[in-house]
Amino acid sequence: MRELGIGIVGTGFMGKAHAFAYRAALAAFPDIPVPRLEMIADVEAGLAAKAAHQYGFARFTADWRALVNDPRVDVVSITTPNTLHKEMALAAIAAGKHVHCEKPLSPSLGDSREMVEAAEKAGAVTQVGFNYIKNPLLKMARGMVAAGELGEITGFRGIHAEDYMHDPEGPYTWRIDPVGGPGVIADLGSHIIGMARFLLGPIAEVSADVRTVVKSRPVARGAKERKDVLADDAARMLVNFARGCGGTIEANWIATGRKMQLGFELTGEKGSLVFSQERLNELLFYRAGGDSRTNGYVRIEAGPQHPPYGEFCIAGGHQLGFNDLKTIEMGEFLRAIGRGEKASPDFREAYEIQKVVEAAISSSKARGWVRVG
Amino acid sequence: MRELGIGIVGTGFMGKAHAFAYRAALAAFPDIPVPRLEMIADVEAGLAAKAAHQYGFARFTADWRALVNDPRVDVVSITTPNTLHKEMALAAIAAGKHVHCEKPLSPSLGDSREMVEAAEKAGAVTQVGFNYIKNPLLKMARGMVAAGELGEITGFRGIHAEDYMHDPEGPYTWRIDPVGGPGVIADLGSHIIGMARFLLGPIAEVSADVRTVVKSRPVARGAKERKDVLADDAARMLVNFARGCGGTIEANWIATGRKMQLGFELTGEKGSLVFSQERLNELLFYRAGGDSRTNGYVRIEAGPQHPPYGEFCIAGGHQLGFNDLKTIEMGEFLRAIGRGEKASPDFREAYEIQKVVEAAISSSKARGWVRVG
Amino acid sequence: MRELGIGIVGTGFMGKAHAFAYRAALAAFPDIPVPRLEMIADVEAGLAAKAAHQYGFARFTADWRALVNDPRVDVVSITTPNTLHKEMALAAIAAGKHVHCEKPLSPSLGDSREMVEAAEKAGAVTQVGFNYIKNPLLKMARGMVAAGELGEITGFRGIHAEDYMHDPEGPYTWRIDPVGGPGVIADLGSHIIGMARFLLGPIAEVSADVRTVVKSRPVARGAKERKDVLADDAARMLVNFARGCGGTIEANWIATGRKMQLGFELTGEKGSLVFSQERLNELLFYRAGGDSRTNGYVRIEAGPQHPPYGEFCIAGGHQLGFNDLKTIEMGEFLRAIGRGEKASPDFREAYEIQKVVEAAISSSKARGWVRVG
Amino acid sequence: MRELGIGIVGTGFMGKAHAFAYRAALAAFPDIPVPRLEMIADVEAGLAAKAAHQYGFARFTADWRALVNDPRVDVVSITTPNTLHKEMALAAIAAGKHVHCEKPLSPSLGDSREMVEAAEKAGAVTQVGFNYIKNPLLKMARGMVAAGELGEITGFRGIHAEDYMHDPEGPYTWRIDPVGGPGVIADLGSHIIGMARFLLGPIAEVSADVRTVVKSRPVARGAKERKDVLADDAARMLVNFARGCGGTIEANWIATGRKMQLGFELTGEKGSLVFSQERLNELLFYRAGGDSRTNGYVRIEAGPQHPPYGEFCIAGGHQLGFNDLKTIEMGEFLRAIGRGEKASPDFREAYEIQKVVEAAISSSKARGWVRVG
Repeated sequence: MRELGIGIVGTGFMGKAHAFAYRAALAAFPDIPVPRLEMIADVEAGLAAKAAHQYGFARFTADWRALVNDPRVDVVSITTPNTLHKEMALAAIAAGKHVHCEKPLSPSLGDSREMVEAAEKAGAVTQVGFNYIKNPLLKMARGMVAAGELGEITGFRGIHAEDYMHDPEGPYTWRIDPVGGPGVIADLGSHIIGMARFLLGPIAEVSADVRTVVKSRPVARGAKERKDVLADDAARMLVNFARGCGGTIEANWIATGRKMQLGFELTGEKGSLVFSQERLNELLFYRAGGDSRTNGYVRIEAGPQHPPYGEFCIAGGHQLGFNDLKTIEMGEFLRAIGRGEKASPDFREAYEIQKVVEAAISSSKARGWVRVG
Repeated sequence: MRELGIGIVGTGFMGKAHAFAYRAALAAFPDIPVPRLEMIADVEAGLAAKAAHQYGFARFTADWRALVNDPRVDVVSITTPNTLHKEMALAAIAAGKHVHCEKPLSPSLGDSREMVEAAEKAGAVTQVGFNYIKNPLLKMARGMVAAGELGEITGFRGIHAEDYMHDPEGPYTWRIDPVGGPGVIADLGSHIIGMARFLLGPIAEVSADVRTVVKSRPVARGAKERKDVLADDAARMLVNFARGCGGTIEANWIATGRKMQLGFELTGEKGSLVFSQERLNELLFYRAGGDSRTNGYVRIEAGPQHPPYGEFCIAGGHQLGFNDLKTIEMGEFLRAIGRGEKASPDFREAYEIQKVVEAAISSSKARGWVRVG
Repeated sequence: MRELGIGIVGTGFMGKAHAFAYRAALAAFPDIPVPRLEMIADVEAGLAAKAAHQYGFARFTADWRALVNDPRVDVVSITTPNTLHKEMALAAIAAGKHVHCEKPLSPSLGDSREMVEAAEKAGAVTQVGFNYIKNPLLKMARGMVAAGELGEITGFRGIHAEDYMHDPEGPYTWRIDPVGGPGVIADLGSHIIGMARFLLGPIAEVSADVRTVVKSRPVARGAKERKDVLADDAARMLVNFARGCGGTIEANWIATGRKMQLGFELTGEKGSLVFSQERLNELLFYRAGGDSRTNGYVRIEAGPQHPPYGEFCIAGGHQLGFNDLKTIEMGEFLRAIGRGEKASPDFREAYEIQKVVEAAISSSKARGWVRVG
Repeated sequence: MRELGIGIVGTGFMGKAHAFAYRAALAAFPDIPVPRLEMIADVEAGLAAKAAHQYGFARFTADWRALVNDPRVDVVSITTPNTLHKEMALAAIAAGKHVHCEKPLSPSLGDSREMVEAAEKAGAVTQVGFNYIKNPLLKMARGMVAAGELGEITGFRGIHAEDYMHDPEGPYTWRIDPVGGPGVIADLGSHIIGMARFLLGPIAEVSADVRTVVKSRPVARGAKERKDVLADDAARMLVNFARGCGGTIEANWIATGRKMQLGFELTGEKGSLVFSQERLNELLFYRAGGDSRTNGYVRIEAGPQHPPYGEFCIAGGHQLGFNDLKTIEMGEFLRAIGRGEKASPDFREAYEIQKVVEAAISSSKARGWVRVG
């Protein structure tokens, strides 16, 4: 089996998550190319050196350009702040690499399109880090929808709510700086939009309310000086899927109490599914009909009957965690490269998700429905 | 303590629920006027006779006009189909009675306004059957919001979803006949709109999608002939409360699997509350701050510390049921009459709720935001 | 339909619960004799008068003997402290009444046997207040076991745990006074033993640990003086059912945090059931086999498909409460009297339950297995 | 930082789990010695070769003796069938290695003692794979107990129930062969006994019922020929902890429906904790006192405030999985070796756990209480 030299740009939380995943991928998936941990980059050389040691990379660098141009690097993972994605991705693609980029592709839709076009022109295999949909239970859910097990789909309620910005005395940070993106609709909204598309296909139009609730924040914890917040912190939208079904989607980072309320309730004429990332190893399933005495929501527990769970744990109840989802993601990416196929979700899919984000923002300004794309 | 002669019009499910409640009210609430079960009416005399016997009413009649005009009847409960409410209520008010009417007041906003005006002019004490908000835990929730325990309120997600119409082969019924009202937005939507108002006050504007998903139904179970459905079966809306907070509200009677998903997630800067009628004796409460190691959602179980729970059960864990909520409702109604005060929610509040329903329908047609009222 | 004159002795919490139930029973069950609320007794005449007014009884008395001997009283409900049950029940039986007695029959097994024998000799219809098993979902559970839907039963784990005595600074009360009974094993243990028998039949032998954890308590809240506690506050036992299956049963009133953890996990070769009174309208059901992808515990929600739920609420999701269970109990009692049949659980069943309690206490002293009865 | 050469014996599920963990340990824990993946052994050379490639080990062998004696191997992980543990562990210890052994140490208490004594005499650092107690939430739980946050501990209910043997038509396997151990009391029981000891300290005495419910099984799936089963499949015991508190422990592998019901309810005078491995990222906590209106069980969600969660995920809600628990286990093992300290749980602790298992078996035969050890 062919080897692939791996390079990671960035050593923060997501850089570490990628490292975990590349280190575990072959153990989970024997059929993928062997990932050789070649080089890791951080603008601070000390951090890069430490990461190389700790994550088992052969080399490190403070110069990301050196990494993306290194001949022994075949695959580049970009885990840096969003504003840097475009330049790095284009350079990597230009150097003939395959590229994994954390979401979003870039803060600007136009820039993202450039990235898509460059990748497609170059024939690079790409992937974007919408890790949550790698959950084996969600793969099954998608399959059930596609196979018609729920009948005609009649409704979708999607949410990604967390609370890390709920406190109005929490300081102004890069997250809410306009350069870094439009706010929660892009940051968390893209996850639930991506999940909606993964399950049900394209969203045709939206009518959204994208707002900034906490209108100013102290420049630092406890500071008297405050700065106006421009980024949105709560977004709600009515959606119409291209398949004809309606729904709502909410993205919210001031949802006091919620740490990872990423989930949905998906309803069809014959059944429904309920999921929350708060209990990622469970899926509720209701199937209409049968014995009414004993019918109800079934709590499905993830197990080997939901591939590729069995590559990680021998039996149900053991449970997957976030890093396992990331390993599935990277395993699929490497497998796609090995086979010369497209990975999923790729740059184009991320771009389609971003179009929904942009449509929501436009819709909120227009106070009415806006078609996507 | 003064007595009040009770008359109930209608002996179906809600008639029976009123009977349960009037029979239990004094046992629960010693301070209210004594309800004397005077007369019960049903268009079928046999049903009226049976109900009088079974529910302990002194007399029965097949003529509702006889009931509303009877001198020994002080209070009239109207539990008949929606299209009959107006005529009965106006007659009862004209006869000097106090009136409880099941929701909605009437299928038409104009008719409902007439009912409000008549009642207010006559000085009748009125109440409308939004029973779910009589839950002791929701009374506490409202108090917590009002007292600022959650800080500034930053979001509301309200749902009333059931599945009794989910099956497209389920036959065409009076529920979806246009004369009976506009559909789920009026039937279930009014409950969650009322709950939202109960907790957070007026809704200022809405942007809604009110639709008919199941577009035709067989005229009878198994029939080949189908009839077009005009009533909406799924409604979703973005809302702005007058207090400034945003949210979503959904009403849905094709939500396969759901029997009583009437609830909300209510978020404030300092805390949040989560409720579902599916577990009506529980309320989840998150309070920001404190020891981060051990913070999280508290599952509050209803108990005597949540009045008037203690009038029904001696200790937590015993639990209230639907009929207890109805008893609280009737107890409050009778107490208000005894004291010469307004009951809640009264005709005017029901009318305000209906205005939101109407605004949602208008908004859906206009495909944009509409101000309420 | 014949009438039955009802008399209640005691106006405390259980007296009120009986009143609620007798008032509601005919509304729920049209086929039972008409309960005529004839007389209510309390040693304090003022309380009796107040109760008669509030609960709608025709007469009251401070002399329970007057009540049990009154010719217009056919049915006597005994809701007084346990030490008074025997004398009252024997007097009522002697006067030819049918008797409902709250659990336990009496603090002494010998006394209870006297009560059983007197009732059976007199042909009185009797019932004892093990209200929780009146839950429609538990009726179904029993039926499923009996019909073999779970296959051979292979295990039972029963618990009744509450926390009203958990605080060692909580004062010494009548509950823990030896005259009033042996403690939690009799008070709460009898409920879960009764539930176990209801579901699985007789318990053949037990090996128990019945202990007093909080060994002394202040004589009053905040008092320095303390009194030794003799009554048990935590009891755990291994059990063997006569049918051959093993299990555990726990009774505990120092279970900090628990308000009503009365429930079980019941396992058979082909399926299992999980129940807790904390969510009395839900039953978890697992059926082995089927599609492994989507198998799991089903959350069954109580509804009209679980008789007699439909006599109380029109649809699932509305939910029953404690007082509804009590109404079912009284309805069945009155129906049995009307039909001249045995009610359930009757004095004999309560006596059989008490035998298990006694066996547990003996076993704990003997530190080994003891056969029941 | 010093390197440690790692050798794993066995390439089945647990061998793979060890490989995952050793590969991830340094990424999670920068302070531990660097694990160098040196050699992996399997009696089938092909499997060993495949595992070496897939898990990134430098060498492989079909001869476990070669591995334990290899000079570049410092640490030996034993993941083979239980009957082989002793010989391998003794050989590794004799060769001066540190040894991790999957539970149980051996099927025989005497053999296990030999292993303990050999390890202690040699000064080997040892660890046994009771992985579930590595959960950050359980570390906190133990700390809360130790710090008195729950007050005096008054009760413990521990369970480890699964259903992989529930079907009486499931074939006879090595698991239930007497040579491999006494059955569920050793296999699953040791986990919950270990967890109980981890939280509350030594168990002083037990009174147990250890039984074989499924008394024969087909020799193969569908075979007519059946073989008698000697191993126990359901074990229940009353326990007394040395600290004075009582409780129950159940081990059960015929618990139809349960995939990983490993958990407990632990009660103290001032608070309580409820845990199940079915939701390993949650811990319920009840603290007595405070505002009675809003008190209840808190659902604590695992997050960075529960070390070492933060080494794996950046924020709450992401969640750990089974393999992360295994990584924590191996990380602690390597850290202990690096520091020359004892690891936990070590061979001696595993031996103490096994003594409780043996006491339970003796107690069941004696039908009474037996002191442990």
